[in-house]
Amino acid sequence: MENSSKQWRFEGNKRLNSASAISVRGVLDLVIGNLSTDDLRPTIPLGNGDPSQFACFRTSTTAEEAIVDAVHSAKYNGYAPTVGVLSARRAIANYLNRDLPYKLSAGDIYVTSGCLQAIEVALAAINRPGANILLPRPGFTFYESRAAYEHLQVRHFDLLPARGWEVDVDAIEALADDNTVAIVIINPGNPCGSVYSYDHLKMVAETARKLGILVIADEVYGHLTFGSAPFVPMGIFGSIVPVLSLGSISKRWVVPGWRLGWLVTSDPNGILQKSGIVESITGFLNISTDPATFIQGAIPQILENTKDDFFSKVIVTLKEAADKCFDGIREVPCLTCPKKPEGSMFVMVKLNVSLLEDISDDLDFCMKLAKEESVIIVPAGMAFGMKNWLRITFACEISALEDGLRRIKAFHQRHVRKQ
Amino acid sequence: MENSSKQWRFEGNKRLNSASAISVRGVLDLVIGNLSTDDLRPTIPLGNGDPSQFACFRTSTTAEEAIVDAVHSAKYNGYAPTVGVLSARRAIANYLNRDLPYKLSAGDIYVTSGCLQAIEVALAAINRPGANILLPRPGFTFYESRAAYEHLQVRHFDLLPARGWEVDVDAIEALADDNTVAIVIINPGNPCGSVYSYDHLKMVAETARKLGILVIADEVYGHLTFGSAPFVPMGIFGSIVPVLSLGSISKRWVVPGWRLGWLVTSDPNGILQKSGIVESITGFLNISTDPATFIQGAIPQILENTKDDFFSKVIVTLKEAADKCFDGIREVPCLTCPKKPEGSMFVMVKLNVSLLEDISDDLDFCMKLAKEESVIIVPAGMAFGMKNWLRITFACEISALEDGLRRIKAFHQRHVRKQ
Repeated sequence: MENSSKQWRFEGNKRLNSASAISVRGVLDLVIGNLSTDDLRPTIPLGNGDPSQFACFRTSTTAEEAIVDAVHSAKYNGYAPTVGVLSARRAIANYLNRDLPYKLSAGDIYVTSGCLQAIEVALAAINRPGANILLPRPGFTFYESRAAYEHLQVRHFDLLPARGWEVDVDAIEALADDNTVAIVIINPGNPCGSVYSYDHLKMVAETARKLGILVIADEVYGHLTFGSAPFVPMGIFGSIVPVLSLGSISKRWVVPGWRLGWLVTSDPNGILQKSGIVESITGFLNISTDPATFIQGAIPQILENTKDDFFSKVIVTLKEAADKCFDGIREVPCLTCPKKPEGSMFVMVKLNVSLLEDISDDLDFCMKLAKEESVIIVPAGMAFGMKNWLRITFACEISALEDGLRRIKAFHQRHVRKQ
Repeated sequence: MENSSKQWRFEGNKRLNSASAISVRGVLDLVIGNLSTDDLRPTIPLGNGDPSQFACFRTSTTAEEAIVDAVHSAKYNGYAPTVGVLSARRAIANYLNRDLPYKLSAGDIYVTSGCLQAIEVALAAINRPGANILLPRPGFTFYESRAAYEHLQVRHFDLLPARGWEVDVDAIEALADDNTVAIVIINPGNPCGSVYSYDHLKMVAETARKLGILVIADEVYGHLTFGSAPFVPMGIFGSIVPVLSLGSISKRWVVPGWRLGWLVTSDPNGILQKSGIVESITGFLNISTDPATFIQGAIPQILENTKDDFFSKVIVTLKEAADKCFDGIREVPCLTCPKKPEGSMFVMVKLNVSLLEDISDDLDFCMKLAKEESVIIVPAGMAFGMKNWLRITFACEISALEDGLRRIKAFHQRHVRKQ
């Protein structure tokens, strides 16, 4: 019996493979794969939004001890309800209610395995044959991947760099048709570092209402703002239009690996219930995995007891890093930053390849930068459909960021076109 | 603006809802909903396979301290690689290699959010337009739900009660066609409590090879055996036919809420790589959530350091419970148990409604038993397509199990048909 000559009937899932090909992770793997082993300097990771490896971003001891207590209690070793542990749902409702004009109840909260699973749930729940969804460009490509996997069609609207990466609201109306079911808004913005005003969000809500579509508000970077604009949750406009609000402890507590997020029906008029969306949310959760029960058990202690000191320290560090990053980029002639970041952990930077001698595009820039300077940044052409843009995260230790910016400057000088 | 009269364009996902309707959880919710609040006795939960709430099934302190150490290290707060943390993959390979004639490497191991996500990955990776899969009846309905969600067709083969719930191997050949890509084998068996012999598993492997299909071996109850037959992992036959082995720490360590499982390519000839299945496994993991990183970080300590004492205690308790359950059922004339359970946490029991006066079927039996006696068991008609069968779990504290069996006997006596 020779296996290699045997005919097997199975093969890989091509649709799945092509859905998965659209990913920042995939692009980053490409760039990381180009690092030179000869460079003895530390690699500067300005690609991913995960600063948890840096001491200055270590999570609060309150959060760590909440986990330890939950494990030692042995009360959370079993299966959780598919919608989440009740005490966690209550605590998340209370946490979000601080910023809302109406009251969410525990029944509005669905605990998910990170914000990623909240996105999976939202896209699955709204899908129906022929449906399409409006996604921001640039945005978070996990939406594109899940939509492709779900056979949910995607239409892109632009975020406008000249207007601080605001939504092109007029374009939305032109883009939508009778099969459009939802629009995704990411605020604070990934990858742009933008923070939308109350008025802008209200205009988006009113436009969605006019179109009869719901809003998926991705607020995984909620409260991570450090400019003049405060964070305004989209749920505030839940009486204008039904909102599915997505969030997690990943970013504010700097624990993306804990995989604890939520999906919330911010909908005081109960339209999501009546339209069957709630049934589909619970339906999806019935046939999916859950976040670890003891992490859910720790959530009340984490949300209620984390000290303001911890949050302030994170914000101060992010603000200092964002400033350093913005200033550092200004010293590199081939890079332009249309808007200083005011939230999240990212900034979008325009690359002017005509100033460089031997760099063909953003991907080429990132691949050579990795090889020559051991600095990792994301080429936005492949990752976000924004050719000759770059996404840089400033969420890392300040000294490493400064080192990275110096290396980018040196890289520019080495490749600059001679007059 | 009156929301209730507004026309909205979104609605729930009907296909998702119908996929989700096929679930043991849904059926159990129905039964639990019929509990009487007037009954002051404790409810006896013989429905779910989750004994973690009972003191005699508390997980090992080794496992608890491994989690605590991982959290305190602060090394596992960030994102994990989508395929899993390398040290966890290595530790799982070593753990499984103890029982295999060849050596798995870390690259064969994919860490998943519980065995449920391993099932999601497996079904997604093998799916292609028109494909069908062979599932056991009775089986674990999560497979049916995920297959329906994935548009993957399902064909059922019977497990034979008269042959100790062995697979009807002849029927498989008749069932398969050119679009059949895989067969699912659950061993030790849920819901039957069966443990398959080396020879039976080898025959299944040879049949799958003949048909050119792969085997998905669900071994979430691996090593939970307490009869004469030892646990034989399907991966032993990986040179005959490629096997996707699924497992987790949920059952053997009694921590289903920790959500840590694995999918393994038990395939020394590399056929899954060549056929594109491996690419689709990593593709699915790229667009899905992950198990918590610090739980992955704890895995080496959990798998390497848990004492045999802990495992023995669990087995002794399960064996005593299985014996008590089997004996107790024999005292109830309307119930017959074709095979004493030798593994997992369940037994399938045939209900003879003709001996009862006012019970129409298995669902009616379970609903009335819940209402009158506060005992929860699963009606197998709705849950597994086995009309007038019941699934009972014996994995609970012995005194509670005895109490439950007494109540079932009393229920029978009250409803028995008068001659």
